[in-house]
Amino acid sequence: MTPKVSIIMGSTSDLPIMEKAAQVLDEFKIPFEINALSAHRTPEKVEEFAQNAYDKGIRVIIAGAGMAAHLPGVIAALTPIPVIGVPINASLDGLDAALSIMQMPPGIPVATVSINGAKNAGILAAQILATDNKEIFEATVAYKTDLKQKIVKANEELAKIKYEYKTN
Amino acid sequence: MTPKVSIIMGSTSDLPIMEKAAQVLDEFKIPFEINALSAHRTPEKVEEFAQNAYDKGIRVIIAGAGMAAHLPGVIAALTPIPVIGVPINASLDGLDAALSIMQMPPGIPVATVSINGAKNAGILAAQILATDNKEIFEATVAYKTDLKQKIVKANEELAKIKYEYKTN
Amino acid sequence: MTPKVSIIMGSTSDLPIMEKAAQVLDEFKIPFEINALSAHRTPEKVEEFAQNAYDKGIRVIIAGAGMAAHLPGVIAALTPIPVIGVPINASLDGLDAALSIMQMPPGIPVATVSINGAKNAGILAAQILATDNKEIFEATVAYKTDLKQKIVKANEELAKIKYEYKTN
Amino acid sequence: MTPKVSIIMGSTSDLPIMEKAAQVLDEFKIPFEINALSAHRTPEKVEEFAQNAYDKGIRVIIAGAGMAAHLPGVIAALTPIPVIGVPINASLDGLDAALSIMQMPPGIPVATVSINGAKNAGILAAQILATDNKEIFEATVAYKTDLKQKIVKANEELAKIKYEYKTN
Amino acid sequence: MTPKVSIIMGSTSDLPIMEKAAQVLDEFKIPFEINALSAHRTPEKVEEFAQNAYDKGIRVIIAGAGMAAHLPGVIAALTPIPVIGVPINASLDGLDAALSIMQMPPGIPVATVSINGAKNAGILAAQILATDNKEIFEATVAYKTDLKQKIVKANEELAKIKYEYKTN
Amino acid sequence: MTPKVSIIMGSTSDLPIMEKAAQVLDEFKIPFEINALSAHRTPEKVEEFAQNAYDKGIRVIIAGAGMAAHLPGVIAALTPIPVIGVPINASLDGLDAALSIMQMPPGIPVATVSINGAKNAGILAAQILATDNKEIFEATVAYKTDLKQKIVKANEELAKIKYEYKTN
Amino acid sequence: MTPKVSIIMGSTSDLPIMEKAAQVLDEFKIPFEINALSAHRTPEKVEEFAQNAYDKGIRVIIAGAGMAAHLPGVIAALTPIPVIGVPINASLDGLDAALSIMQMPPGIPVATVSINGAKNAGILAAQILATDNKEIFEATVAYKTDLKQKIVKANEELAKIKYEYKTN
Amino acid sequence: MTPKVSIIMGSTSDLPIMEKAAQVLDEFKIPFEINALSAHRTPEKVEEFAQNAYDKGIRVIIAGAGMAAHLPGVIAALTPIPVIGVPINASLDGLDAALSIMQMPPGIPVATVSINGAKNAGILAAQILATDNKEIFEATVAYKTDLKQKIVKANEELAKIKYEYKTN
Repeated sequence: MTPKVSIIMGSTSDLPIMEKAAQVLDEFKIPFEINALSAHRTPEKVEEFAQNAYDKGIRVIIAGAGMAAHLPGVIAALTPIPVIGVPINASLDGLDAALSIMQMPPGIPVATVSINGAKNAGILAAQILATDNKEIFEATVAYKTDLKQKIVKANEELAKIKYEYKTN
Repeated sequence: MTPKVSIIMGSTSDLPIMEKAAQVLDEFKIPFEINALSAHRTPEKVEEFAQNAYDKGIRVIIAGAGMAAHLPGVIAALTPIPVIGVPINASLDGLDAALSIMQMPPGIPVATVSINGAKNAGILAAQILATDNKEIFEATVAYKTDLKQKIVKANEELAKIKYEYKTN
Repeated sequence: MTPKVSIIMGSTSDLPIMEKAAQVLDEFKIPFEINALSAHRTPEKVEEFAQNAYDKGIRVIIAGAGMAAHLPGVIAALTPIPVIGVPINASLDGLDAALSIMQMPPGIPVATVSINGAKNAGILAAQILATDNKEIFEATVAYKTDLKQKIVKANEELAKIKYEYKTN
Repeated sequence: MTPKVSIIMGSTSDLPIMEKAAQVLDEFKIPFEINALSAHRTPEKVEEFAQNAYDKGIRVIIAGAGMAAHLPGVIAALTPIPVIGVPINASLDGLDAALSIMQMPPGIPVATVSINGAKNAGILAAQILATDNKEIFEATVAYKTDLKQKIVKANEELAKIKYEYKTN
Repeated sequence: MTPKVSIIMGSTSDLPIMEKAAQVLDEFKIPFEINALSAHRTPEKVEEFAQNAYDKGIRVIIAGAGMAAHLPGVIAALTPIPVIGVPINASLDGLDAALSIMQMPPGIPVATVSINGAKNAGILAAQILATDNKEIFEATVAYKTDLKQKIVKANEELAKIKYEYKTN
Repeated sequence: MTPKVSIIMGSTSDLPIMEKAAQVLDEFKIPFEINALSAHRTPEKVEEFAQNAYDKGIRVIIAGAGMAAHLPGVIAALTPIPVIGVPINASLDGLDAALSIMQMPPGIPVATVSINGAKNAGILAAQILATDNKEIFEATVAYKTDLKQKIVKANEELAKIKYEYKTN
Repeated sequence: MTPKVSIIMGSTSDLPIMEKAAQVLDEFKIPFEINALSAHRTPEKVEEFAQNAYDKGIRVIIAGAGMAAHLPGVIAALTPIPVIGVPINASLDGLDAALSIMQMPPGIPVATVSINGAKNAGILAAQILATDNKEIFEATVAYKTDLKQKIVKANEELAKIKYEYKTN
Repeated sequence: MTPKVSIIMGSTSDLPIMEKAAQVLDEFKIPFEINALSAHRTPEKVEEFAQNAYDKGIRVIIAGAGMAAHLPGVIAALTPIPVIGVPINASLDGLDAALSIMQMPPGIPVATVSINGAKNAGILAAQILATDNKEIFEATVAYKTDLKQKIVKANEELAKIKYEYKTN
């Protein structure tokens, strides 16, 4: 089984957030790998990783980082594979990470998702792979349908709330 | 020629920004369409668009919006096609649009690029299509190589600056 | 009893905040309904809701949402009924939700109240209905009078605090 | 002709922004008045205004203010008539005014619209009056329909743009 | 004993913050009163208070408020007595209150201190009264001298910390 | 004529803002001096100034500064004379200066006015001096009365605006 | 042993943050001293310290401060020794301190590190001393090499995580 | 002449800002070089540069960047030479660049100066080199003395301003 998505992060302290991407990919049956890399601590490993990723079969990279979050942008500079950036809230409510990831200069995009939004990163990776994979495409369609179930359940719960002037 | 990318915006006032995405796609020889749609003014057109896009051949959607920028997220809610959101600076330096696009709830990702970053949206669209298209992939690789030329030229210009204690 | 106000939210996790609107309406004896709807998960339900609301007798809609809070604006786009938006603090101290709700483009207003301010949303709904309902109007006048009692009580408590140089 | 809406502002320097509310009301054929009042300069006039407004026939108040924008909240404290607050950008991109208007404490809501969003304030006033006025209601429905024309026109303009790989 | 300073707040929930002003005034032996007033709930009491304060002997007013913090500015509009505003952190880390108090329009200043800075408000009140009172002036001079003791004690504590390469 | 107020700034580039304080004091007939001092460039002059100010007759200090605006706080640390700080917008819309002046630690208050609010600083200085000077007090009362004239004039101008549905 | 680095702070409450600088210097075997100084409480001690520091052998100063964090800038104004500023999060997530330290006017730089980043301040001090000290230089090179070990360990931990579709 | 300081930037559009660092170094007679490098466009050149800089004689690096400003941090990750980061205002008033440079994770400091503060970067570089160079040290001492001249001149200008109640 060769991985199609690579999840990378700078530290295992980011794992509780980033694991949500792994859970989504697992649910979508998309092979993935998880690695620790740091734009600041192991820059040469980052380069090596980025240059081999495509040939290894990686088609989407999910990179999480907090504070001055350079990892997603640095990876994106080194490979044409689409990079999804997950800003991690490690300070300033995550606004520093969000700006450090989103505000990339012309030429090197990073697909930024919400602060701590690794689950959305996993879904977006599936959506990108689905552009060329009928099976994953069906799965993303099914996933969207499932989201509606949450609202059905929420309505069941809200129906139980009683007020004198509540009509439903 | 059927379009693979759809560029949408809420108003022609966003065109000077959003046209940079069109230029990039044209350069990459990726067929695309441009349409005006508004999450607030023509919601039913948005829905119709989103539901037909995949069958029409669209594989990536680029949506630009300013202020309470709902268009990218609303589109993303209606289709599993990857949606790239471009926050447009129409107030508050574009921070309101950036947060309205990036901070999507779990389940519905939008791939957010930098404020006014339509060029990067075009490149990201190409990178996504390249996951399954050798020709576009080669073009994105070539594009990255070209970026280096800017630095070469910049160095030539910097070489001309003269100071007594400048050594290069 | 037909509802005059509809309280909507995207998830039952917003209920502890949004229930304050229900409590106010109940106190004002204004019939209301509570439903879960999501601009992103059940967009077609949102549309259906918005298009039937007026004929069902709904005259004010209170919509709460967090993060990229699109629900109030999307509803407002679909109906001429006044929509009161409650920004819910789910990230960034609620500033993302506040901007996503308040910064609506020209043509589609949302009446935004304070972050987590569902109580004020309930009062504002009553004030809107009162423009044409003597009974509710009297209730809003009485409510304002009651607010002064809090200050009377606060002064009684402050009177008990003793300092050598405190004169009252 | 007795006014149903009162537009107030603290200074004629706010008129270029606030006049957009007047234009909308005029278009909707809703009688209105415009007055200068200041929470800080003529507090007793503000009080007098607020206490007589309902009996004069005023059913909605639109108040614009910049910086530490107290006028909307101070009016809202003095009358049960719904108050729509327009944050005016006079400093800090209007964020100070937006927070000073939106963040009202429990008990005294202000219906806040976007920064410099006086047009939306006018529309919201019409929507509030429409809850009890068939004619205005029809006008707001028609207004929404007109908004779609802008998108039709925008698409006509976008159709004229030519790129080699543009398909529409 | 007639009060020279009046401490006002909108709710007893602000008392834990505002009491620090009382403690400082007590320490400086400056007679003061504490009252609850609300720009939004008891506007006419605010007006009454402001108009009688000078004749009662009040020479400085300390007003604390959170969120859309209008109380200090509204008081300042009603009296030429200097008003010290204390932004209270009730939301958004207190930034909303700080801007609502500090950003007063030309003509009506409020002397704004730090977020939750009631202690500094008490000291500033003493410094203002000291401009014309030798006794209080001496007390403020002595207070400043005492501040240095904290640094002396801090240095004693720091001297106890041991590291191999710490030299002091 | 000995000065009662000292206006200080770090650079003549701040003069166009700070001169508004001088104009107010001149209008109030309060003797004042203007000096350039810099917490960073002439710290020993700042100290000398602060230590002699009281004996020279200075009773209020107005200090303007931009960016990392240390001058007001540094002066306040050196003298018990009340210091009014004027944040000057030299970067970041003046928010950096506002926080650098307002967020003083416990023990050393600075009376912060609005960004670029030198006029308000002049008025506040007059209000402080008025606590002990009947003449200045009368002037501040008169000044407040004059503020109402602006509103009267504004209403005259607004009366001239014509709309079909404008009633006043 | 004469100190080469001086760590200063305004209060022992900053010690838990600032001690990380001490730990790094100790690890690098660089002699240092720790002192409490306050730009606001003991300005003359600050001056005395700054003027003697160079002759005492101090070559780098690390200054931590929160809120309106003036200490690093005030020290930097008094000595040509490089000053490293550590913004301490005491309010507003540390953004006020960061701006008060970083936004120094032309002529007086402060080398600002991340919010609560005293560890980085210690490393930067070592890097500065290393420009002229082979031993410390070797230590900083070794330190960088050690950083990579964290990534190696993180990868070992990540290797243990099991998912059905995880490939590594 | 071998350079001791290296000034790097990502684009010649940053030159008008960054040249101020060159001017300062020239004034201090410190040999320097200027190069264009980009963390995103020429990452391998950045690496090559960083790894050779020390042996070439570089002792301080000044790196300017805007938006998601990764260049200073990426360089700092690759060399133990002290890196001074200059946030350049290219969007969001430069706050994105400031946070992307300042908020570096533990282990890799960047000495951040003010937004657009290249002049201060040049001075800080001189101060760092001065820790081990008597000549440069004397120059930095002289530079500080010169700063006072600006204040002397400013006072001369302020002396010319005439007001009836101005006493100096």
